[in-house]
Amino acid sequence: MKIVCIGSGNVATHMAIAFKEVGAEIIQVWSPNAQHAEILAALTQAEAIHNWADLDRTADCYVIAVRDDAIAAVAPHLADLKGIVVHTSGATAIDVLSATGKGYGVLYPLQTFSKTTAIDLKKVPLCIEADSAETLDKLSAIAHLISPMVSVVSTEQRSILHVAAVFACNFSNHLYHLSNTILAQYQLDFALLKPLIMETAQKIQTSDPRAVQTGPAVRGDEKTMAKHLSLLTGSPELQVIYEILSKSIKNTYN
Amino acid sequence: MKIVCIGSGNVATHMAIAFKEVGAEIIQVWSPNAQHAEILAALTQAEAIHNWADLDRTADCYVIAVRDDAIAAVAPHLADLKGIVVHTSGATAIDVLSATGKGYGVLYPLQTFSKTTAIDLKKVPLCIEADSAETLDKLSAIAHLISPMVSVVSTEQRSILHVAAVFACNFSNHLYHLSNTILAQYQLDFALLKPLIMETAQKIQTSDPRAVQTGPAVRGDEKTMAKHLSLLTGSPELQVIYEILSKSIKNTYN
Repeated sequence: MKIVCIGSGNVATHMAIAFKEVGAEIIQVWSPNAQHAEILAALTQAEAIHNWADLDRTADCYVIAVRDDAIAAVAPHLADLKGIVVHTSGATAIDVLSATGKGYGVLYPLQTFSKTTAIDLKKVPLCIEADSAETLDKLSAIAHLISPMVSVVSTEQRSILHVAAVFACNFSNHLYHLSNTILAQYQLDFALLKPLIMETAQKIQTSDPRAVQTGPAVRGDEKTMAKHLSLLTGSPELQVIYEILSKSIKNTYN
Repeated sequence: MKIVCIGSGNVATHMAIAFKEVGAEIIQVWSPNAQHAEILAALTQAEAIHNWADLDRTADCYVIAVRDDAIAAVAPHLADLKGIVVHTSGATAIDVLSATGKGYGVLYPLQTFSKTTAIDLKKVPLCIEADSAETLDKLSAIAHLISPMVSVVSTEQRSILHVAAVFACNFSNHLYHLSNTILAQYQLDFALLKPLIMETAQKIQTSDPRAVQTGPAVRGDEKTMAKHLSLLTGSPELQVIYEILSKSIKNTYN
């Protein structure tokens, strides 16, 4: 299995390492940033390339992991290859790759990747989509190399997954940050909340979040909510978020 | 160590079991709901009582874990006891127990408790407060029996912790529920998001949430945000939440 990596950011790095670990060969890394390409190439014993003329055309799979708005620009350089060409974006339609000709698809890892955190891709759901049944078979086999959790997901479904992930992940992380800022104003240590945050995420692994909702809003405890709003007087933004989310909880359960 | 449990809900049950496990004796359980008192008493080999006249006055600690608005009503029944009297509420001032006389305080476990989920209290931060240095010493020793994570926290600080916990826990769980409702509309399985939710909570155990924020809002990716809002057209409530939280993220990082 020979892979060419197009891109050198967080997703590209985690995917390249995962393929490497299961015995695939990363033969080349292309990146708009030559220095970043060198780093990922060194990490995976690959060749860093910067000119499209140097592209190795014998790979089984070309994995595009660049910024969403840069995918369309790289696609024409990946035309008429023997191997399949896939992008890794949650928010981008499969059609962006139609310029590559035949044999294209999407390999979207549903996870949040940071440079500093190791991710076990075997525990990451991979959402795949392809331009034909033949490509889908090939892509499915490639995806199963790095994770057992492979689902066929259409472009429309992937958009929905992406927006749902913003609520579940990006917004939750922001709430963690907001709670940290509330504590910092009173010299309280964010570490006090960490077990609670873990337990909240842990609980929904086996329970419907609707069934385990706690707090003043679901209890209809107006006195506590009024007290909380008065504690947030210094931050109208926090008050608005508190009111909107409490109202949404009340609408859900009442 | 002899404990009397006032209350028989989630917090009372988890605390009673934790004390039992470290060798303390639960001698009595009082509850406004006689049947619930019987259940917890059976679980902990304690005596269930319903009349205050039957209260054993020889315990070392009386742990009140009833609804916040019911604490004031039970306090006068716990006056002039040898042992200390503590409540377990995050949102209630220590003064609510002044009717008990001397030797009162707060033992607030900063965690979310559900009937169906076992909690290891050794991993739960306990916030304590007392009416005197002497009571604080006694309470600290009792708290350390069940958790090594014991912090002295004033009533004002506890209120702040409580509102911060609403953001970090209650609101996050509601976002999990909202993401589930978004997926359900398109017959997508919530299981696809579970690894992402775990990783998001895991990541902030060792990183500042501000440093690991991802998603379209922190990237300033207006095109994706506009697309997400159009996908949420069927739910004005989800659109408002999306806009308010995205704006708050943008305000944080720009």
